[in-house]
Amino acid sequence: MSRPCSLKDIAQECGVSVSTVSQILKNSPRDYSSEQTRAKVRETARKLGYRRNYGYRLMRGQKTMTVAIMASMEHMRSEEHVSKLVIELMSCFDHHGYASYFNTFVYDAQENLNKVRDLLARGVECFVAVGAPVGHKELEREIEEQGGYLISTSREFRNHIFMSDLSASRRIVCYLYERAGENFCFFPCSNPLPGRFAALKEVFKHLSQEELLRRHTCRCISYKECRGNYPDFAFREGYAATEKACGMNPRLRGFFYENDGFALGGIAYLVQSGRQIGRDVWVAGYNNDSAIRNAPYPVSSVDHDWEHHAPLFVEKALKNEPCQTVLDTTAHIREYIPGTNRIHEIDFVSSEEEYESSK
Amino acid sequence: MSRPCSLKDIAQECGVSVSTVSQILKNSPRDYSSEQTRAKVRETARKLGYRRNYGYRLMRGQKTMTVAIMASMEHMRSEEHVSKLVIELMSCFDHHGYASYFNTFVYDAQENLNKVRDLLARGVECFVAVGAPVGHKELEREIEEQGGYLISTSREFRNHIFMSDLSASRRIVCYLYERAGENFCFFPCSNPLPGRFAALKEVFKHLSQEELLRRHTCRCISYKECRGNYPDFAFREGYAATEKACGMNPRLRGFFYENDGFALGGIAYLVQSGRQIGRDVWVAGYNNDSAIRNAPYPVSSVDHDWEHHAPLFVEKALKNEPCQTVLDTTAHIREYIPGTNRIHEIDFVSSEEEYESSK
Repeated sequence: MSRPCSLKDIAQECGVSVSTVSQILKNSPRDYSSEQTRAKVRETARKLGYRRNYGYRLMRGQKTMTVAIMASMEHMRSEEHVSKLVIELMSCFDHHGYASYFNTFVYDAQENLNKVRDLLARGVECFVAVGAPVGHKELEREIEEQGGYLISTSREFRNHIFMSDLSASRRIVCYLYERAGENFCFFPCSNPLPGRFAALKEVFKHLSQEELLRRHTCRCISYKECRGNYPDFAFREGYAATEKACGMNPRLRGFFYENDGFALGGIAYLVQSGRQIGRDVWVAGYNNDSAIRNAPYPVSSVDHDWEHHAPLFVEKALKNEPCQTVLDTTAHIREYIPGTNRIHEIDFVSSEEEYESSK
Repeated sequence: MSRPCSLKDIAQECGVSVSTVSQILKNSPRDYSSEQTRAKVRETARKLGYRRNYGYRLMRGQKTMTVAIMASMEHMRSEEHVSKLVIELMSCFDHHGYASYFNTFVYDAQENLNKVRDLLARGVECFVAVGAPVGHKELEREIEEQGGYLISTSREFRNHIFMSDLSASRRIVCYLYERAGENFCFFPCSNPLPGRFAALKEVFKHLSQEELLRRHTCRCISYKECRGNYPDFAFREGYAATEKACGMNPRLRGFFYENDGFALGGIAYLVQSGRQIGRDVWVAGYNNDSAIRNAPYPVSSVDHDWEHHAPLFVEKALKNEPCQTVLDTTAHIREYIPGTNRIHEIDFVSSEEEYESSK
């Protein structure tokens, strides 16, 4: 890129001072130049292709209206609900005149810190982190010390908008338990067990955690093992885990997966083994991906509704407001309309508060 | 954000000139200060929280290592293959030390031009456009005049890496024609007809374009009508169009959709009407979305493989090289292994050149 025209170039060409050029070009009330000088400066600026840039603002520490959106982990980039949130956030910030950087954190705290420092040097004022990356405490400290604002979907950060998974998961587990009774299996893929495991403990009150793990869960391989495309990885692992679980207990009828990617793998195994989803067996995933919403079978799922809350993240970020918010997730229970091949859907929105008070 | 510490602040605090501070902090060989002054300046910079920023580079027109990735149309943002490309590009640029803005163009040429101008003022050196937005010629001119580089997936731009859809579509149409014969229907959703319609004309040589349109196509509603989430829109419209087409010709057995979103809607209708995909009827989409790759039935599709070509876009952009490249798409033909419920996949990579020479 060739060096763009500077105020100095215009000043030299016109034989006036840099500050005169600056006053004229920003229509300053302190511009006491003659009409003739003004016309000459403007014409020269046009001729030389002068364009105001953000350099001056950056050097003065003025607002640059720049934000950065950060995915916390590699595998998140290929998750549909993450990219939906990222794109919604960017679109919202854009609407407010902000430009967005997008970046992914790695599994190295120092490298993450360097990334954040570079973005601060580029004038980034607000950071929105999806999840909590490695070294998150140091990142938070660095951003706050530099006068920046940070908000996340994770409660690991001071400022957060967190989607509670507990009550929606409980809806799902209750529904599957109603249909399948004891022939129920949960397929977790994270370690430690995800928050939604607490919902199982609620429903299977009569079992100890050890019994619950032994009788009603079958581990999928952790997302941390994923190299390459996450949906394809989850599909393969979900297929394998379901085949294994059905091998051990052929009467299994209720299947709950930690996310929709694994559920799609499970569904493929179940269909190919001749089971009828929504008639012989019942399946639920998590994240409400389009492949699940638009499956030819009724498959239940839980929606973070992240993208609907994007404006709230943006509002908090632009106001630099402290924020500790826990929001509702929606359980989408899907089943056949009796006697037909049509699917209907019942949606339950319920907050953690509601769940807490119902205990 | 409070005003960050400037070189001037440090100079005042230490009683030295701004240029001395600058030389010391960038470890310049032209720094002739005493060890004592150096130590004092460095300590003061640390104490005041000084951080180098990009303002100076921007004002001097030095490289800022900043790129912008632009989606050309609103609906693209919720398309899986687009977000995969965008995220791959960002990751590749990041790897080379570049930071990426992401933005979506609108249906207004002037607004698009303003967006590009703002990004240029922010120091953006390269633009990668997915598709061709409204007013693309003006955007190209503006970027080039400002010394920036622009490359796109669309042949509407001078610099492009274009994925030809012709030969892969022909594979798909031939496959469906083998299976379904004359009981074949193509479901286009764009207007004018997409490039892949040419593949139909090749295979159905004996029909005039009018007969081909009347007998073997059924229009889905254009993506331009989409408000809100594109996959859900495409699903609904694909379902409706398939129901209509099957109503008019209940013997239809081969179904080719302009994209996978519409195919998913078609699949739901076909399954719910009791048809067996991969046995009674054969379905193909386009884009090779994960919901199609990981469907419980064999559904064929075509992959742009955009994300595998992201490094090529980045290479061309960083070298500012002229680029007019046409690349291969891959047709993925999926079917049941005879006598089983297992799906196998045959992949055909073929370039437009190959297709041209095979005619």
